[in-house]
Amino acid sequence: MKIQVSADLTYRFPEPTQIIGLVEAAYSADQIVVSEKLTLSPKVEVMSDAGLGGERRFRTCLLGDVTITYRAEVDNGDRALVPRNARQHLWGELPQEVLPYLLPSRFCPSDQFQRFALREFGDAGDGAGRVMAIMEWIGRHVDYVPGVSTAETDAAHTFTVRAGVCRDFTHLGITLCRALSIPSRAVSAYAVDLQPPDFHAVIEVFIGNRWWLVDPTRLAPVAGLVRIADGRDAADIAFLSSDKPCNLVSQAISAEWID
Amino acid sequence: MKIQVSADLTYRFPEPTQIIGLVEAAYSADQIVVSEKLTLSPKVEVMSDAGLGGERRFRTCLLGDVTITYRAEVDNGDRALVPRNARQHLWGELPQEVLPYLLPSRFCPSDQFQRFALREFGDAGDGAGRVMAIMEWIGRHVDYVPGVSTAETDAAHTFTVRAGVCRDFTHLGITLCRALSIPSRAVSAYAVDLQPPDFHAVIEVFIGNRWWLVDPTRLAPVAGLVRIADGRDAADIAFLSSDKPCNLVSQAISAEWID
Amino acid sequence: MKIQVSADLTYRFPEPTQIIGLVEAAYSADQIVVSEKLTLSPKVEVMSDAGLGGERRFRTCLLGDVTITYRAEVDNGDRALVPRNARQHLWGELPQEVLPYLLPSRFCPSDQFQRFALREFGDAGDGAGRVMAIMEWIGRHVDYVPGVSTAETDAAHTFTVRAGVCRDFTHLGITLCRALSIPSRAVSAYAVDLQPPDFHAVIEVFIGNRWWLVDPTRLAPVAGLVRIADGRDAADIAFLSSDKPCNLVSQAISAEWID
Amino acid sequence: MKIQVSADLTYRFPEPTQIIGLVEAAYSADQIVVSEKLTLSPKVEVMSDAGLGGERRFRTCLLGDVTITYRAEVDNGDRALVPRNARQHLWGELPQEVLPYLLPSRFCPSDQFQRFALREFGDAGDGAGRVMAIMEWIGRHVDYVPGVSTAETDAAHTFTVRAGVCRDFTHLGITLCRALSIPSRAVSAYAVDLQPPDFHAVIEVFIGNRWWLVDPTRLAPVAGLVRIADGRDAADIAFLSSDKPCNLVSQAISAEWID
Repeated sequence: MKIQVSADLTYRFPEPTQIIGLVEAAYSADQIVVSEKLTLSPKVEVMSDAGLGGERRFRTCLLGDVTITYRAEVDNGDRALVPRNARQHLWGELPQEVLPYLLPSRFCPSDQFQRFALREFGDAGDGAGRVMAIMEWIGRHVDYVPGVSTAETDAAHTFTVRAGVCRDFTHLGITLCRALSIPSRAVSAYAVDLQPPDFHAVIEVFIGNRWWLVDPTRLAPVAGLVRIADGRDAADIAFLSSDKPCNLVSQAISAEWID
Repeated sequence: MKIQVSADLTYRFPEPTQIIGLVEAAYSADQIVVSEKLTLSPKVEVMSDAGLGGERRFRTCLLGDVTITYRAEVDNGDRALVPRNARQHLWGELPQEVLPYLLPSRFCPSDQFQRFALREFGDAGDGAGRVMAIMEWIGRHVDYVPGVSTAETDAAHTFTVRAGVCRDFTHLGITLCRALSIPSRAVSAYAVDLQPPDFHAVIEVFIGNRWWLVDPTRLAPVAGLVRIADGRDAADIAFLSSDKPCNLVSQAISAEWID
Repeated sequence: MKIQVSADLTYRFPEPTQIIGLVEAAYSADQIVVSEKLTLSPKVEVMSDAGLGGERRFRTCLLGDVTITYRAEVDNGDRALVPRNARQHLWGELPQEVLPYLLPSRFCPSDQFQRFALREFGDAGDGAGRVMAIMEWIGRHVDYVPGVSTAETDAAHTFTVRAGVCRDFTHLGITLCRALSIPSRAVSAYAVDLQPPDFHAVIEVFIGNRWWLVDPTRLAPVAGLVRIADGRDAADIAFLSSDKPCNLVSQAISAEWID
Repeated sequence: MKIQVSADLTYRFPEPTQIIGLVEAAYSADQIVVSEKLTLSPKVEVMSDAGLGGERRFRTCLLGDVTITYRAEVDNGDRALVPRNARQHLWGELPQEVLPYLLPSRFCPSDQFQRFALREFGDAGDGAGRVMAIMEWIGRHVDYVPGVSTAETDAAHTFTVRAGVCRDFTHLGITLCRALSIPSRAVSAYAVDLQPPDFHAVIEVFIGNRWWLVDPTRLAPVAGLVRIADGRDAADIAFLSSDKPCNLVSQAISAEWID
């Protein structure tokens, strides 16, 4: 399916600030970027490259008020739902590059969740069954509430507080999957039909010999996701990383089907 | 310099347990494995491969009491000390594969340390100067005390408690480097002259256009380190990861100069 | 019922150390200390007093190896079980001195648990019904496992890890009660039939206009408890508080029915 | 000195909510409430009482938009500064009711700070010298920055992040004092000359045989403080505690000298 995405982000940088931007649609195997344009205003030179997963970073140094504008038309192909029979792999069967996604990360301390995960989801079949049980459990036990979490909130805190936003849902889902030895990672995306419009964070799990996108918030259809980047958790896929504090002045994101 | 390393590890696995072992000397650019032998007793088939950084994992499933034995002769070449003039890079100058080591990880929440790091080390020159200032600060403010930390201890806790072992010193050093935009990672190693003999954990920083080994505990000479693996923190380089609880029954590690 | 209790504790103090000891049976309204003897060996003068709740502290300064010996015969009267119809009070009905036990404390961050507690126990009736539902939930979801917690473990960590000892069960139970506006505190005690013999930590809840003892571990009958002290959590009722590190060399505790 | 204080607080309670209010000037030994008036609008009956420390709670159940108005004229006597020679007491010398303020609490995990406190302040003399050294250290190392902390932030987090508001400064100061065996508690207050006008949180330390007020933020003179309540930390002295979420709609606080 073809999707038109756009982002208009204005930041204020009180002093010269190094940044890494991650807002462009990925050059990944699961989508084609038909056309696109990234603009910084005022104009400034950037260093761009694409990573192993197709994610595309731009790096530069910014000062004052800067607007980042991105427009793209993307064909995201076939975002299939996880098939019910996708099975979980033994560690020995996993491709080497998938192994890091079994491990705990900054916001996903899966090492602390083995007892809970096994007790709650141990009998939920295998692979897809467990992933679906985790998503249902999150939907039933965690409230979507803006404002209760911060940029430092990890999945253990969300598990206690039982509230958060897409980032928190994603961290908790990843954490529970990893605690059950299911490789899982975070994906930043543009999302058609997300209300209110914003960047979205979802989960990707490796079962049945490939990665599958899953949205623990159920706020947007997986079919309407345009991938930006993936990583161990939100730390890896921030839309803007900076070496000094800066402020988001305004933001407008959209993603719409093109018929 | 040539070094003879050996490890004899006996674990007890109460039920069939998937494991990843990371005890073999790395096939990395900075050392040559002259000869080696890995044995599991009782004998069991393992799946082995070497990662991008040369680290060598073996994966298998174990049950009961199992002894892992490793012997190797390694030429670790020239483990040079960080030169005083090695300078820090701008984000835009860093090789893409180095970027993840700027980010917070499970045990290194560098996102929380920017004010402290800048206030304490902001004037300590650049690159090597800052790294050395961090190492000296750790040596002056943190006590080497076995037993005060656990496998869940992160650098924020060590920063408060001011005590720990090599793992904790390493996490705190990495965290402070990253808070100053110096890429930093954890390295597991065999270490000549370490007392008591054990696996060791040290830091690697990327300044002056390459990685340099640094030991924040100052317990063993960098020249006597044989690299096993590197990663974002201890989560990535555990000697043994397992999907179920298991017990270390006995352990004997050694590393000695061969003349 | 009459109970004979005894404690023999040997500590090593490497340097002169201020201590507060809390091992004597309380002079509280719910038990009578028939006879008792506290001895420190070598002999040292102590400052003793009883607090508002009848708990009895001794304070002194110790050095070297010191053995604290306590023997007592206590009539603990009628340790009745919480009656099923004991109802929860409105805040406005509570005696003023009970109010602090509604609040979060060092190891009981009840402020983080309101959503979970309400969702899980909101329909479990009122007062005794909710307390019993919490105890059952803990019994079903948390494993009694020595060694997974430390002296710094709080209830949020136990809630995630789902394992601990009597101290952790008590902290989690208190936390969940407070999150539902049920006043709750920690009680240290001698406990008949506890295996292995040790000091015990249990919960006390204020419903139906008085405090009731409840054991979330179900390891010892409430009828066999001899109260030592109560407080907001383990920080208030430590058997030995010290201003410098010290080591427990040996410990023997017992509590037995006298017929 | 005579001080006129006023508070106008409007809260929105979406459903019937139990509350405890703590905004009235304390009936404590160190100040005289000359005249005062507490009004709730719309009018609602409250249950009022004064605690052992003179703090005055009102309890009631509220619904909808409610404005709490308080006006008082208070003579706060002589808020003397800590004399330089006020000495620290041995544990055995402290009044029993002071002992709880040696212990860790929800936001003041002093048990984790003993090494740091001893290393940093161990040589800063005794009693007043140490307290002053702690206040200077906080002033030099922690930035006053609204917005970086939340209602869940504890002193360990502030110690790492090195920024916060009066509540955070107070928690860190208390924590460091307790880690050195100096009894310390939190005091909520009206404060003349505080900019912007707001409730204030300061520290009280017990040295030289009495409690002394200290302001770690140095934002308002101690002479202009009107005490509301004291407690182990912010959990005990919240201006409004509620058993369900509610919103602060508007707030106006003032404190002015009466000549």
